[in-house]
Amino acid sequence: MNDSSAFRIVLVEPLFSGNVGSICRAMANMGLRDLCLVAPRIVDGWEEGRRLACHALDLLDGRREFATLDEAVGDCVAVAGTTARLGLYRQHVRTPRESAPELAKLATTGTVALVFGREDKGLCNEEIGVCTHLIRIPSANEYVSINLAQAVMLCCYELFLVRGTYEPPQEKSVAATAGHRSQMMKMWRQLLLEIGFMKPDKADHMMQGVQRVFSRGAVTADDVNILMGMARQADWARKQGRAPQSAP
Amino acid sequence: MNDSSAFRIVLVEPLFSGNVGSICRAMANMGLRDLCLVAPRIVDGWEEGRRLACHALDLLDGRREFATLDEAVGDCVAVAGTTARLGLYRQHVRTPRESAPELAKLATTGTVALVFGREDKGLCNEEIGVCTHLIRIPSANEYVSINLAQAVMLCCYELFLVRGTYEPPQEKSVAATAGHRSQMMKMWRQLLLEIGFMKPDKADHMMQGVQRVFSRGAVTADDVNILMGMARQADWARKQGRAPQSAP
Repeated sequence: MNDSSAFRIVLVEPLFSGNVGSICRAMANMGLRDLCLVAPRIVDGWEEGRRLACHALDLLDGRREFATLDEAVGDCVAVAGTTARLGLYRQHVRTPRESAPELAKLATTGTVALVFGREDKGLCNEEIGVCTHLIRIPSANEYVSINLAQAVMLCCYELFLVRGTYEPPQEKSVAATAGHRSQMMKMWRQLLLEIGFMKPDKADHMMQGVQRVFSRGAVTADDVNILMGMARQADWARKQGRAPQSAP
Repeated sequence: MNDSSAFRIVLVEPLFSGNVGSICRAMANMGLRDLCLVAPRIVDGWEEGRRLACHALDLLDGRREFATLDEAVGDCVAVAGTTARLGLYRQHVRTPRESAPELAKLATTGTVALVFGREDKGLCNEEIGVCTHLIRIPSANEYVSINLAQAVMLCCYELFLVRGTYEPPQEKSVAATAGHRSQMMKMWRQLLLEIGFMKPDKADHMMQGVQRVFSRGAVTADDVNILMGMARQADWARKQGRAPQSAP
């Protein structure tokens, strides 16, 4: 079983094609492909949905539709329902982040469904009863109702991160060595003295400040080379100019 | 400074009002209120934006507009730009989750801006230069371009979680005591024997399985009371019925 087939997004009776399209794009962003709709009631045609699916139109076209939730999740090893409400039987909810590790583990044994309810009234109690897990997205108490496509994105994002398939971008330039940095700082010290930025008796003190600034910005060998190039060029320009005048 | 004013969402030249409206709702969901637009180029009027802002229309109406990014972030102590690209000068990017703790810390000293670029081409290098931090949202390599409103939601969500203002829902019913649970298990053991679900010599073994199932589901006093009520009712129904027949 490949990674992307381990999770299925199930939308129960969605109303707006724009949400379905946005969900296709979000799923593609987070490496998922399996979209099922239960008794969709799309009220606005599919034009908006196709527009918002953007480069994930193949997911929209590849969606499957079922008459009931039971059919849509019949082959799943776990069914995680999402809810914004906290009813009597919805108290064992967990956040997407809390749920993700267990769901990802279960997904190695079969398909795990994430079920999202209607835009206007979520999942009914009978549908909640089908779920083996319940998820509630943390939100400000003043406004807990999250847009359907946004809710799907947040859940897919948490699953994507926990699956560990994301490789953070690597610095292409190697880290600067201490010697390289020290050589660069010497060039700048010399330059700043030559251009009268600081007097010799204040140089040690002033260079501490310069060092602090450069140390923050210059962490790779490329960075250090850039700063050295700047010092070299400033020195060249200085020498091309006229000799320093006394202050007027 | 209150919590919500510590973060500002800045959109550079947004094109679609629907995205701006969705962003207002996402901000309200995650407890933020300060929205600034830089030279908006809204091409579709504001109708869609007002519809998607939903119950966060006050954020949309309260938005501020600036001619330049510099003006929009002039009073901020930190400026975090978002990028999907990994250019030469964009290698020090971090994920929203990695950045959130530091940004939240900075936000205790002043306003922190989160800057999002154009739908069609993101932030230009000059705008990236204004940023003190760079954020890139993890995504599948096959489709890295995330919808503007979705990107804002993911960043706001990470900031909301790290600010620690979210209080997970509490069980309203107290946890069941061991004695309460034990009493409940005795009732079920008795019932299951009475109805012939198990024979006395297999009861200990069978009850281990039943206990495992009930222990998972029944963790609060209310839960245990429900299971006791079920056993009591089943026993009552059994006694109302006819005496057990021998198997045909």
